[in-house]
Amino acid sequence: MPKVSPEHLEARRKEILDGARRAFAEHGYEGATVARLEEATGLSRGAIFHYFENKNDLFVELAIEMNTRFGDILLERGLDAAFRALAKENPEWLAVLIETESRMRHDEDFVRRLEAKAADTSPRIQEWFQQQQAEGKMRDDISWMELGRFTTSLLNGLALRVAGGDPFDIDAMLRLLNDAIAAPRKPRKVKRPRSVAQKRTA
Amino acid sequence: MPKVSPEHLEARRKEILDGARRAFAEHGYEGATVARLEEATGLSRGAIFHYFENKNDLFVELAIEMNTRFGDILLERGLDAAFRALAKENPEWLAVLIETESRMRHDEDFVRRLEAKAADTSPRIQEWFQQQQAEGKMRDDISWMELGRFTTSLLNGLALRVAGGDPFDIDAMLRLLNDAIAAPRKPRKVKRPRSVAQKRTA
Repeated sequence: MPKVSPEHLEARRKEILDGARRAFAEHGYEGATVARLEEATGLSRGAIFHYFENKNDLFVELAIEMNTRFGDILLERGLDAAFRALAKENPEWLAVLIETESRMRHDEDFVRRLEAKAADTSPRIQEWFQQQQAEGKMRDDISWMELGRFTTSLLNGLALRVAGGDPFDIDAMLRLLNDAIAAPRKPRKVKRPRSVAQKRTA
Repeated sequence: MPKVSPEHLEARRKEILDGARRAFAEHGYEGATVARLEEATGLSRGAIFHYFENKNDLFVELAIEMNTRFGDILLERGLDAAFRALAKENPEWLAVLIETESRMRHDEDFVRRLEAKAADTSPRIQEWFQQQQAEGKMRDDISWMELGRFTTSLLNGLALRVAGGDPFDIDAMLRLLNDAIAAPRKPRKVKRPRSVAQKRTA
């Protein structure tokens, strides 16, 4: 048997996940049978379940990836990029994801794996908001924690809209969001030599 | 058999819905058995299913009520009141509602009934945003349609937070929302008699 490089294993894993995502999007969680997973990935069930324990495991991996995707984009490319990526998501896949995730919140293993991943990403996102505020880019009359909660709530609400096929203007959403959380624009600086002089002589 | 007034029928219906909501919140949709519905409402199954066809029918009524509740509060008492009502919702009930609704989006009858009710409320909510903008209370550089979409997306995202038991500061959320959608504060009016004079003589 030829040696398989870690890169090859990782590429094959990704290939399976991409195919599975398409199958879930098209047929729903229940409808994505093993035969359909084979068809979508172009691989045999033997090959698929060599990389993933079972269908549930495949779904959990995809859910974890989606739950951290927008956080990752935020950290790498900023807020606007994260929201624009969401707006372009496949509505069918988002709908299946939201439905299945909501059903799985009773599944302890699922919740544990999701939280383990979130434990890695969440502090970095919180730090990002904290940093934005410290740098004077976000308003400082509301805690960075609440600025983050506002932003992620909007993101999740828009995810529901995308999943439901309900339209929105992403540019308008981003202007509204940024106007809410941005630091207020400073008034133009005006030289006021007289008031300085007044102070000095006071 | 004594005559039963419409008021009595309506009160009884409401009593059943209230009990059913508690049973769904506590036990989930599947777990809310007929025995538990009897216990929660204090009524026999015969009485319950005199008013509602079946458990699904009960749930659909509750879902429709919740889907229009925040719109109704908005129309009657304004935006802040609607968001504050959401923040005080029972997390368990919201979680069951979101999960079951998401599962039922494939159910044509459910979707039809929900849309029939929304067809009544949605235009009134749209009109409300339009009106706020026309009265100069909301910014007019973004369409009232998008202002409404932004607001409802935030509301839905916060509903997910409430359902997940994740905290947020409702006052902070409302300040951020209002800062996003409100008309910009006008600069203080300054008498400018000269420019009027200029206009007149122009």
